[in-house]
Amino acid sequence: MDPEFFPTGFKATATAAGIKKSGLDLGLLLSDRPATAAAVFTTNTFPAAPILVSRLNLSESGHKMRAVLVNSGNANACNGEEGLAVAQKCVSELATWLGCSPSEIFVSSTGVIGRPLSAERVCDAIPSLISGTSSAEQFSRAIMTTDTFPKVASSEVNGVRILGFAKGSGMIHPNMATMLSFVVTDAVIDYLELDRALRFAVDRSFNSITVDGDTSTNDVVAILANGASGISPKPEAFTAQLMDVCQKLAKTIARDGEGASKFVELVIEGAPSDDEARTIGRSVARSPLVKTAIYGSDPNWGRLVAAVGNSGVELVSNQIEIYIDDIPMIHGDLAAAQEKMKAKEMRIRIVLHSGSGRATVWTCDFTEGYIRINADYTT
Amino acid sequence: MDPEFFPTGFKATATAAGIKKSGLDLGLLLSDRPATAAAVFTTNTFPAAPILVSRLNLSESGHKMRAVLVNSGNANACNGEEGLAVAQKCVSELATWLGCSPSEIFVSSTGVIGRPLSAERVCDAIPSLISGTSSAEQFSRAIMTTDTFPKVASSEVNGVRILGFAKGSGMIHPNMATMLSFVVTDAVIDYLELDRALRFAVDRSFNSITVDGDTSTNDVVAILANGASGISPKPEAFTAQLMDVCQKLAKTIARDGEGASKFVELVIEGAPSDDEARTIGRSVARSPLVKTAIYGSDPNWGRLVAAVGNSGVELVSNQIEIYIDDIPMIHGDLAAAQEKMKAKEMRIRIVLHSGSGRATVWTCDFTEGYIRINADYTT
Repeated sequence: MDPEFFPTGFKATATAAGIKKSGLDLGLLLSDRPATAAAVFTTNTFPAAPILVSRLNLSESGHKMRAVLVNSGNANACNGEEGLAVAQKCVSELATWLGCSPSEIFVSSTGVIGRPLSAERVCDAIPSLISGTSSAEQFSRAIMTTDTFPKVASSEVNGVRILGFAKGSGMIHPNMATMLSFVVTDAVIDYLELDRALRFAVDRSFNSITVDGDTSTNDVVAILANGASGISPKPEAFTAQLMDVCQKLAKTIARDGEGASKFVELVIEGAPSDDEARTIGRSVARSPLVKTAIYGSDPNWGRLVAAVGNSGVELVSNQIEIYIDDIPMIHGDLAAAQEKMKAKEMRIRIVLHSGSGRATVWTCDFTEGYIRINADYTT
Repeated sequence: MDPEFFPTGFKATATAAGIKKSGLDLGLLLSDRPATAAAVFTTNTFPAAPILVSRLNLSESGHKMRAVLVNSGNANACNGEEGLAVAQKCVSELATWLGCSPSEIFVSSTGVIGRPLSAERVCDAIPSLISGTSSAEQFSRAIMTTDTFPKVASSEVNGVRILGFAKGSGMIHPNMATMLSFVVTDAVIDYLELDRALRFAVDRSFNSITVDGDTSTNDVVAILANGASGISPKPEAFTAQLMDVCQKLAKTIARDGEGASKFVELVIEGAPSDDEARTIGRSVARSPLVKTAIYGSDPNWGRLVAAVGNSGVELVSNQIEIYIDDIPMIHGDLAAAQEKMKAKEMRIRIVLHSGSGRATVWTCDFTEGYIRINADYTT
């Protein structure tokens, strides 16, 4: 499954460091030269140690990074000063091996909260990570927790290559609640443009899938651009290409929702603005009543209207149309709508007559499987 | 189950008007004289017709009401102009029978969204409602939808009686998503004081139970004070008495959560302010990951910390303590904590070291039963 278009100058490796009971649990993304880097971090007010260290490193290095080091199986969150020391130790060790500054290392963790992470296990595995054979699949498997499949997406446009990895279930998991994504590209691009493109793409991809409304202590999306292609794409072209990769990854996360049986694309039209359309879309896509209706193939449009109203966005019209595929739901043919809802994939379109704002969000249904997965986990 | 302390000058009656397939579905609260009235309405931007009519009536009558007319089985929501006409017709008919102004009638509906409500069935039932024998139990049953038991609470303090009714499951139901509460009292109290007391009590009761994050098109809490006791209580005393009745009702709603098997009192201490404590409490109590952990008796404190962080409230300390009953959870005795979590009722206390703000919220666990109830309903 290795992508055809691996960006020039990058490698992706993985190993089993013994952080999980078994399997790949440590991954490395390595650039052969310093890369311009940007990242979007969790808004959770209890950020994990690696989030704090990476945020500091980004600013200290002037947004230049050589490598991303990620472990699964332990979030290194809520571990206080010791957690910070462990993250810094791993960063220093990798920097020593690479002959770069520790501030050029981006570190990330996902897994159980509140258990000490062994710096020794991570450090011992670093040499084999550095010398390992590049494999996008192996790296993507090393960052999985409750994911049921690895998540990789790639693109080449006019000689610029972008490769992205993600982990995360459509609904986030106890103690492994994290949504991570790492993207590498060989485009020539400066920091301000890269940061702007990343934020634009993240809003329209990872921030447009709904999980269960929780944000984790460890969520992060980071991008490294090493310029190895020698090509400097137009900002709009690069942003579109990045958004495409991020949307592909985000949709695989929604499809892999814990216990999910259906995938839904939700289009909001006629909102006062694009941002407000996205707010409404997220409100609908997050509603447990909407998600259980989708599970039960119930064309219960009252739940959709109530969820739109629950978003808090003021609308100038109370006219509302709702379509599933091409079938109108409000005062429409509910039997036909119900048939459409039985499919594994569906598209619901909500038209609000309050402006030209538009957004697309993605979600999954809400099943007994979610309850079982999350109730049965025992610390 | 009729309360010992029925406020003077009020009666509560009920009948089967044929709105539901069977059973009581129409209730009337009637004061023998005009009563001072205050209400808190849903923040949903698609309020149902009865919400619009009652809001207008309250302001047109100068906050004086003679009666509250409530039906279950049909929300009269998303019915456009016709829905408004139906609500107004019912109001006019009742006003004619009572010989008062239509603006002195408060009207409320709960049930399926988007289906026409028959004004005729409601109007035909009004004479028997007016002449009926007072029964708090019958009235409370007439406003039930998915509730598994009727919800009534009462109090007498220094001669002032307060009687409250509520309906609503701890998690709100498809098409019957509504939380309603009606409170009557024979206290002598002016509008501004009554309104202030109601808002204070509602914040600390109905707004402190979590449902699934959705607000309905029909939610309302209304109070009528007819002064028939001749007693004018001190504002603080009346507010405390009202809060007590509202908290009793709110807790019964949380206990009656759809599919719920456990009841949780969640105390937040050491927040920057009381309001922020309540925001944090609601964030924790609403988290599906927390609610499934409670269901699974999993002392998984990482989920609680993540939910606190997810509230968006800025804390000056990252010190946090969590107790279940008297057992510390963070780095504490998890086996003992797990034992406590197996109980049907538990108290979780979160101490934040960031101020003197404090709040109590109530919630229930999240089980497969919720999914089944909400997925199996078919329009």
